[in-house]
Amino acid sequence: MKNDARIEAVYRLHCGARAVEARAQAIAVEQSVEMPLSAIHEDWIRNEVVARVEAIEPEDADAGAGTATSWRVTLSLDARTVADDPGQLMNMLFGNSSLHPDLELLDARLPASLLDALPGPAFGIEGLRTLVGASRRALTCTALKPQGLPPQRLAALAGSFARAGIDLIKDDHGIADQPWAPFAQRVAAVQREVARANAQTGGRSVYAPSLSGGARRLAEQLRIAREEGVRCVLACPLVIGVASFVELVRERGDLAVLAHPALGGAARIAPALLLGRLMRLFGADATIFPNFGGRFSYSRQTCRAIADAARAPLAHHRPTLPAPAGGMSVARVDEMIEEFGSDVMLLIGGNLLEAGDALPQRAHEFVERVQRACGC
Amino acid sequence: MKNDARIEAVYRLHCGARAVEARAQAIAVEQSVEMPLSAIHEDWIRNEVVARVEAIEPEDADAGAGTATSWRVTLSLDARTVADDPGQLMNMLFGNSSLHPDLELLDARLPASLLDALPGPAFGIEGLRTLVGASRRALTCTALKPQGLPPQRLAALAGSFARAGIDLIKDDHGIADQPWAPFAQRVAAVQREVARANAQTGGRSVYAPSLSGGARRLAEQLRIAREEGVRCVLACPLVIGVASFVELVRERGDLAVLAHPALGGAARIAPALLLGRLMRLFGADATIFPNFGGRFSYSRQTCRAIADAARAPLAHHRPTLPAPAGGMSVARVDEMIEEFGSDVMLLIGGNLLEAGDALPQRAHEFVERVQRACGC
Repeated sequence: MKNDARIEAVYRLHCGARAVEARAQAIAVEQSVEMPLSAIHEDWIRNEVVARVEAIEPEDADAGAGTATSWRVTLSLDARTVADDPGQLMNMLFGNSSLHPDLELLDARLPASLLDALPGPAFGIEGLRTLVGASRRALTCTALKPQGLPPQRLAALAGSFARAGIDLIKDDHGIADQPWAPFAQRVAAVQREVARANAQTGGRSVYAPSLSGGARRLAEQLRIAREEGVRCVLACPLVIGVASFVELVRERGDLAVLAHPALGGAARIAPALLLGRLMRLFGADATIFPNFGGRFSYSRQTCRAIADAARAPLAHHRPTLPAPAGGMSVARVDEMIEEFGSDVMLLIGGNLLEAGDALPQRAHEFVERVQRACGC
Repeated sequence: MKNDARIEAVYRLHCGARAVEARAQAIAVEQSVEMPLSAIHEDWIRNEVVARVEAIEPEDADAGAGTATSWRVTLSLDARTVADDPGQLMNMLFGNSSLHPDLELLDARLPASLLDALPGPAFGIEGLRTLVGASRRALTCTALKPQGLPPQRLAALAGSFARAGIDLIKDDHGIADQPWAPFAQRVAAVQREVARANAQTGGRSVYAPSLSGGARRLAEQLRIAREEGVRCVLACPLVIGVASFVELVRERGDLAVLAHPALGGAARIAPALLLGRLMRLFGADATIFPNFGGRFSYSRQTCRAIADAARAPLAHHRPTLPAPAGGMSVARVDEMIEEFGSDVMLLIGGNLLEAGDALPQRAHEFVERVQRACGC
């Protein structure tokens, strides 16, 4: 059963030069067969299923390789161990190895068979542009907050945002199915108000409710959202499970899907891989990430890498729209478009709400600045 | 809508004394309303929904509090923000804050309302004892490896383990639904062989297949497992998503459920909380964790803390059986029972397979040592 389709996984390993070969080999075994190789009698399993150490390179060896304490280790894994299960992909890349505090997953290059098995974005950048009617400029996005507000207040807020011309209005990711704004009532109220605002202005603002829970609840929420005429949903793949996210992606009909990174920060998986490439392969049409200089600590370089991974050519897959977020402000619109270009969705939440009674004006300013910055 | 039911979440924050109060307050906001407080007009939301900083204590202040770089920060959160969704619990405890590299989640004390909403173990220690017919001694467990073996070989292996008297025989967690041993065929073959071995020996070994995938696949696998007479299943809550895990727990009928920690190691969540208390509340009847001195690096103290959290009184919930694993050996049986007592399940995999042709003997030795160490 010869098979040349291997996954290349790149890790950063913190250890000394004397230990690195043995550690790399141990990780290869851990991430594939998880047992002593001497006890495996089948040649083909030892030759193919067992992960291979393909390369070990020192990262910090200024005084010579013997002094390095940080290493880039490349393993190749048999793609058949993943089959077509996204959860199994995470398991094979970093399941047990996540338990090693000195190991980080930096990159994963998947063979064609696996790239074909994963859905990728159905809308992607072009699809979202068509959805909101913005063929060239960056997209604008905001969030309904805080959780605790009843459906009518969330709807009123959404109406204000829609009348200002904001493209995408999403639930704050903490708004799930709490008693103060149960999903069905909230979605009905907000969607109705956004549709009303669109009818008034001729706009095409889109509301994206946040989906949560186990499979049963997710399916029910998807059904309700569709019935209410919703055109887009938000979910947190690391919270609901990546396989559940992919199932959602496969079953959402003609709804766009946005991915939120909640619970993904501590994964010790490089953000460009997790929030860029993997979210894209799992089917996110846009991927929200914490931009540099906001409430979170990703560097500019990391954020560029996320956007690159989201948009760079990747087999036949459409590009995913990067959505920098996390304490962004209207004052930074020009800078963010300078940084990321127009194929981006700027997500500004708290900064709009801070304006209080002047919220409509600030939201309008957000929209206008983006248009000007993109030459529209 | 006054409500005294709050969750107490304890974090470790790495920062200097001058920054700690502001950081703690920022985290409280991040983990609840995620927007500037000045923009919240509803008093009750500011007073109840917004998380509160309850305590800030220096951890390392030998030379005085001004020198501390590590702090224990206690926040209280409104339990209604979680409602009854386990995924939302993870989101509220550590969703966005997981994106802060200097923050760890150490502990979470849940109010009665939430403890009631979560299932807890249906079998727990007593139920698993009854299942395998071991009323006093520690339980024995092993794993079918490596992935790549076809169903007949996995079944033969399981038969050997069952004839030796091992209580629980689980799939290696990497064995999912790969082409070399598709779930349905594997489960049928292994279950049949284990049942045959039990009939021969009068034993009560139990096979626990590993469930994986999104909701549809999980439900299908559960159905197949039940049809084949399987009495126990294994799942990885962090891989399939904790809400999916809880749904599985609620729908598994009379099957016991074991939890595996794959992908949970990097979470920056204290192992005792994640693998002990939370797995228990999510409904794991046994919780597998990497024991000290094996292939992983948890300390003895950490492992004790996991076992304590799994077994200590927790409202009305049954205790979960701790299952130390990860490179354990028959030689360590006495020591592990000395460490954890008899309310434990010892999981030894590779060490048995390493014996090659002498596998039946070593498996038998495993069983006998446990019996002797427990005075049975």
